[in-house]
Amino acid sequence: MLVLTRSLLVLTATGIGLFLGSASAQTADEHTSEVKRIMDHASYKEAVKFIDGDYDRVIAEGIKLTEIPAPPFKEEKRAAAYAQMFKDVGLTDVEIDPEGNVLGIRKGTAGDGKFVAITAHLDTVFPEGTDVTVKREGTKLYAPGIGDDTLSLAINLGYIRALNSAKIQTKEDILFVGTVGEEGLGDLRGVRYLFTKGKYKDKIKAFFTVEGGGITSVTNGGIGSKRYRVTYKGPGGHSYSAFGLVNPAFALGEAISLFSRSFVPAKPKTTFNVGVITGGTSVNSIPFEVSMEVDMRSESDAELKRIEERLLTIVQQAADTENFARSTKEGKITVKAELIGDRPSGSTAETQPMYQFTKAALEANGYKPNYSWGSTDANMPMSLGIPALSIGAKGPDKNGRSHSLDEWADVEKGPFVKGMNTALIPLLAVTGLQ
Amino acid sequence: MLVLTRSLLVLTATGIGLFLGSASAQTADEHTSEVKRIMDHASYKEAVKFIDGDYDRVIAEGIKLTEIPAPPFKEEKRAAAYAQMFKDVGLTDVEIDPEGNVLGIRKGTAGDGKFVAITAHLDTVFPEGTDVTVKREGTKLYAPGIGDDTLSLAINLGYIRALNSAKIQTKEDILFVGTVGEEGLGDLRGVRYLFTKGKYKDKIKAFFTVEGGGITSVTNGGIGSKRYRVTYKGPGGHSYSAFGLVNPAFALGEAISLFSRSFVPAKPKTTFNVGVITGGTSVNSIPFEVSMEVDMRSESDAELKRIEERLLTIVQQAADTENFARSTKEGKITVKAELIGDRPSGSTAETQPMYQFTKAALEANGYKPNYSWGSTDANMPMSLGIPALSIGAKGPDKNGRSHSLDEWADVEKGPFVKGMNTALIPLLAVTGLQ
Repeated sequence: MLVLTRSLLVLTATGIGLFLGSASAQTADEHTSEVKRIMDHASYKEAVKFIDGDYDRVIAEGIKLTEIPAPPFKEEKRAAAYAQMFKDVGLTDVEIDPEGNVLGIRKGTAGDGKFVAITAHLDTVFPEGTDVTVKREGTKLYAPGIGDDTLSLAINLGYIRALNSAKIQTKEDILFVGTVGEEGLGDLRGVRYLFTKGKYKDKIKAFFTVEGGGITSVTNGGIGSKRYRVTYKGPGGHSYSAFGLVNPAFALGEAISLFSRSFVPAKPKTTFNVGVITGGTSVNSIPFEVSMEVDMRSESDAELKRIEERLLTIVQQAADTENFARSTKEGKITVKAELIGDRPSGSTAETQPMYQFTKAALEANGYKPNYSWGSTDANMPMSLGIPALSIGAKGPDKNGRSHSLDEWADVEKGPFVKGMNTALIPLLAVTGLQ
Repeated sequence: MLVLTRSLLVLTATGIGLFLGSASAQTADEHTSEVKRIMDHASYKEAVKFIDGDYDRVIAEGIKLTEIPAPPFKEEKRAAAYAQMFKDVGLTDVEIDPEGNVLGIRKGTAGDGKFVAITAHLDTVFPEGTDVTVKREGTKLYAPGIGDDTLSLAINLGYIRALNSAKIQTKEDILFVGTVGEEGLGDLRGVRYLFTKGKYKDKIKAFFTVEGGGITSVTNGGIGSKRYRVTYKGPGGHSYSAFGLVNPAFALGEAISLFSRSFVPAKPKTTFNVGVITGGTSVNSIPFEVSMEVDMRSESDAELKRIEERLLTIVQQAADTENFARSTKEGKITVKAELIGDRPSGSTAETQPMYQFTKAALEANGYKPNYSWGSTDANMPMSLGIPALSIGAKGPDKNGRSHSLDEWADVEKGPFVKGMNTALIPLLAVTGLQ
């Protein structure tokens, strides 16, 4: 029987290469069969039972981690707490690498020196001083970063405890990671380090990141993004006595106004944002420097290039306009557009086993996967041709307002636990449940 | 002889009321004569000689004070140093009042319980962390705040030493003040406290403030100003997944762009400025809040009202535009325009003795006074009908780039000392050189 054959193949194959590399030789049915094998497996059932009993602890740890602020470039405290949690759940080789990522290993039975990475990101978008106290209303938790991505950190801890409790052995060595710098100006610095500089560089053959969405959110494309800091400088001066001189805030306002009127297609999805503005020293001084931070993303490299070129045209045009509108006798407005983020794009083909396992696992549990492109830690391996997916493990449509102060996650037990149980299946399929 | 008569009047009059209140009874010639009397006076000549020898010390103290940062609302350190300097030059009743102003008295021979105030302001426009190191190139000193207004603090100390050294007695009690909060959001808080709450409230009958300009800069009109903090709020959200929601930065950009295109008349001089912008939390989040600080001034109340109304119209219009341009399903853009500065206007009539003495002193020394309106500590007494002038005591056209990082003052000895000597004359005329 094909299912059995498939299972035998899993058990006897010389490597996970069969799953990762030879997808074209497999059929969707084979993935469905493997998912069924896992769901019927006594160890998986034991893990599911454990997860049900462990739910309160996962939520408590999620709240605990959420309330340790992890602003961009300042994830140290949360990382230290997470490293201790990795040790407490029995991972080996626990360390915080030089970039700040938290790493730990759960050995497999037949690892080949390459790892399947299961990750979540430590950082949030929120600056220092943001109130990160978790507020609960019924089953809803409100806090900046609760959904994106702190509960995922706790979910991964729950998975490790479940594997241990159910005495599950995987064929592959698993590298669990809490990454830094996934958000904003972090520019994927954690995962970038992992794949290009760290000790596990060239040793990761498949990559899952558990992200902020629910179980039906599967991100199989890494959206390319370009981020700029655009700085206008001018001579500055007294708002009254030097009135009439060029004002960099006027140039910036003009640039934002023009940029806000840009057309971008809904498909391929293309977006643009002015996320941060800053500048000037006092209300009665013409600023000598103002700046904005701009984020642009697209599923299409051509569209990304189009909006990027438009931005670069506009910002120069706004400087020129201001230099024509007011006096430049003390100096002109100058503009600098500095590339501060350049996220690689890539995708994981439908034919990849990890894609098929995830699809089959969701469908077997009555979910309809919602595939999308995103900008996550998975961009990095995707851009390197390493199979990678960003998945969700919470209940579907049970979180929202990510990156806003009223971010929330509904952790109603039934959907939450079912989401965790379902997402565990592709993880076990790719790591090779023995 | 009119001059003598005039001098006798000075010596025998029952009060300074003759100088301050009965200008209409005097002719320009009488003021010219009094200026001549002072310039011929042995004590004045002695003071002039002293100022020449004291020059190095004035400059050194100006540099010392400039290098003690005095950002808005954070003048404490400079105030403490200045209070000590007031004590060192022998002022009595030296104190720092509850608002932070530094006060000290030099008693006159026939004070009537009311004071002539001679002031300069302690604060600069520059925020904490600004490099305030003074750089010297030849006779030019470069530093933020050097001209506006720190050298004036040192000049006033020089005047006190000169009066003491020349054993000059004035009829009037003099209240020397280093004020806080003259700049920006300080909104004249120091001088406002002095005239409306402090212990010398209702006890100041004439007011000189030594300001950043040179000797020919005489500010006899206090420009009214209105200052607003305009804040746009919106729902915020993820720059990619929530793309399409209203963005407060876009509304702000639109408002700035429209505002930058406002027409204001050159006469009556009317100005507008966007001085500070801030907002947003990360490049990949739609901001939930952004704001700008706006300064508007006019010699004409009607023009000030006109530009103020235009601003208030524009900021609402920009919110409406953004609410029409993008989705409001998670919430609309709201705008709040908060009045953060409202400086009173007023003027000191040409017929006032202090105006005439200043004019005569400048002309007697070969200077052509350049009268203007400004926004200085003198606005406050002017608005209360108390005679007040903002004068300069440095060389003419020897400073520039006020409120910018490359602010400079040329302290070439000849023009500097001549400026000081000239400005001393109206001070002595109004305080009554015995």
